Amino acid sequence: MGEFDFIRHFLSCFEKARVPVGPGDDCAVLPPARVPVCATVDSVVEGVHFTRPFFRLADVGHKALAVNLSDLAAMGARPRWFLCAVSLPSRFSKAQVLELARGMAPLAKRHRIQLVGGNFTRADRLSVTVTALGEVSGKGPLLRSGARAGDVLYVSGSLGDAALGARLKGRAPPSAARRQKRPEPRVRLGLVAALYARAAIDVSDGFAQDLGHVCAASELGARVSLQRLPLGAALARTRMPESEKRQLALRGGEDYELLLAVPPARASAFEKAAGRQGEKVTAVGSFTREERLLFLDAEGLPVVAPGGYDHFL
Amino acid sequence: MGEFDFIRHFLSCFEKARVPVGPGDDCAVLPPARVPVCATVDSVVEGVHFTRPFFRLADVGHKALAVNLSDLAAMGARPRWFLCAVSLPSRFSKAQVLELARGMAPLAKRHRIQLVGGNFTRADRLSVTVTALGEVSGKGPLLRSGARAGDVLYVSGSLGDAALGARLKGRAPPSAARRQKRPEPRVRLGLVAALYARAAIDVSDGFAQDLGHVCAASELGARVSLQRLPLGAALARTRMPESEKRQLALRGGEDYELLLAVPPARASAFEKAAGRQGEKVTAVGSFTREERLLFLDAEGLPVVAPGGYDHFL
Repeated sequence: MGEFDFIRHFLSCFEKARVPVGPGDDCAVLPPARVPVCATVDSVVEGVHFTRPFFRLADVGHKALAVNLSDLAAMGARPRWFLCAVSLPSRFSKAQVLELARGMAPLAKRHRIQLVGGNFTRADRLSVTVTALGEVSGKGPLLRSGARAGDVLYVSGSLGDAALGARLKGRAPPSAARRQKRPEPRVRLGLVAALYARAAIDVSDGFAQDLGHVCAASELGARVSLQRLPLGAALARTRMPESEKRQLALRGGEDYELLLAVPPARASAFEKAAGRQGEKVTAVGSFTREERLLFLDAEGLPVVAPGGYDHFL
Repeated sequence: MGEFDFIRHFLSCFEKARVPVGPGDDCAVLPPARVPVCATVDSVVEGVHFTRPFFRLADVGHKALAVNLSDLAAMGARPRWFLCAVSLPSRFSKAQVLELARGMAPLAKRHRIQLVGGNFTRADRLSVTVTALGEVSGKGPLLRSGARAGDVLYVSGSLGDAALGARLKGRAPPSAARRQKRPEPRVRLGLVAALYARAAIDVSDGFAQDLGHVCAASELGARVSLQRLPLGAALARTRMPESEKRQLALRGGEDYELLLAVPPARASAFEKAAGRQGEKVTAVGSFTREERLLFLDAEGLPVVAPGGYDHFL
């Protein structure tokens, strides 16, 4: 199979893009946007972001798009278009290309993001680089720098199951393996957050580090109640010391949840709006003028030595 | 060095993007475009598109952006923004990251395309994937499908030197090696062509194959005068059978010239406008209603057995 065969088979799995010019010319042509456009790019690389056979090719396809949709969600953006650059080993078969695309296509359809272009090239190892474009919605874009002291700190869904899946791989509980391989980007929640929140980030590097990014950009600190952190169901059930579970939830990463700063006056309305979309959010703390990150135990005592988040992380 | 250090050093080589949100958040935010936007993505992969030390890292950086600018040029688009996803071996140093960026930054500046985002990840081998966005200009976008029978077939610059550089590598004449490592995308010519031409493609896969793409998309054929093909200066000087030189010019690829279809009534004005921009263009043939590709010798006789371009290529 040549490059053009790969492209043809890959494209056959996706709905035809409704754009002035879709895949097949030197560039795609997108209609003029009436609002600002969010753009992001992220790669998943074999041996770094995934291993096979723990990841099936359909998982790789799903995840490559999902991590980019998560970045759009963190801006409160509405997904619109994406380009997909695939590097693949020379012995890749038609069936393998189709499996990769079939892992990606349903997610694209669900979030109404259209494949408008891409590139296939040879490489020693499989990697997929997706560039995603979305339109700013609501009062967005939601930036990392928008939080203010007193804002309620929310996190969506649950933390730690994806990291548990990565650690245990084939021996992981199925739901944890699925969280690792098939993250569900919080696109709908991002659109809600664009109406209520002041700042957002997606939790890809781990809750603590990503909270640190928001704090740094907003020139704030934060207080987090450890016992309020929503542990993943699989992690909660696993036989493991509590402190280790907490580490996975705080630092494991790849949760692809949203971390949000919401003004206290809008917190209740935000929770209701999120609930109407079926999106779980948990208030786990608040942002503070003092630029340090504090994790508090059930008694409200700091359990990690305080310090600037730069040193701390 | 960690991911964030790589990003910081890389960014330090580029001018700060004048966009609502540049690198550093979950997404870049671009202003709403008043015209349609062209989008393209292309990767350069070590061992496939380049080898070291024939390519220095600065060459890799230049070429990764250049091949994408060439796609924008082929649409007649004005370069605006790009994202850069880099996969690099774990032992990459700060100096190496800077060299990569310093090969890319002058080209970006020259064509006024702003780096708005990107991604760094580990990998076994170096690869750089650039996504470039540009605004449609003139009467563009120029599509592959726009040619009509009777249109004059132009090619810019010269052909074959890049392929000669790839073949001879370290033993190549310096100008041929440079054409291979530092292609200069025909962005200015693309903007001129957007006012005069009906169809365009950039010559990346080889003149014959790329002409075949235009013919297929336009449902036309073409007649090409072989003796009018502008051979690269290094190729012309090289001691090599004429037939072999012609093969490199026709099929070598990576010329990153533009191949254009211009209505005969506008040909003269087009040539003058290109000349004012210092861009050389050569009329090498014409498009025909009969869907076959004919290469003609000095006497106007076909030198390659005629046939549909699909079989031919």
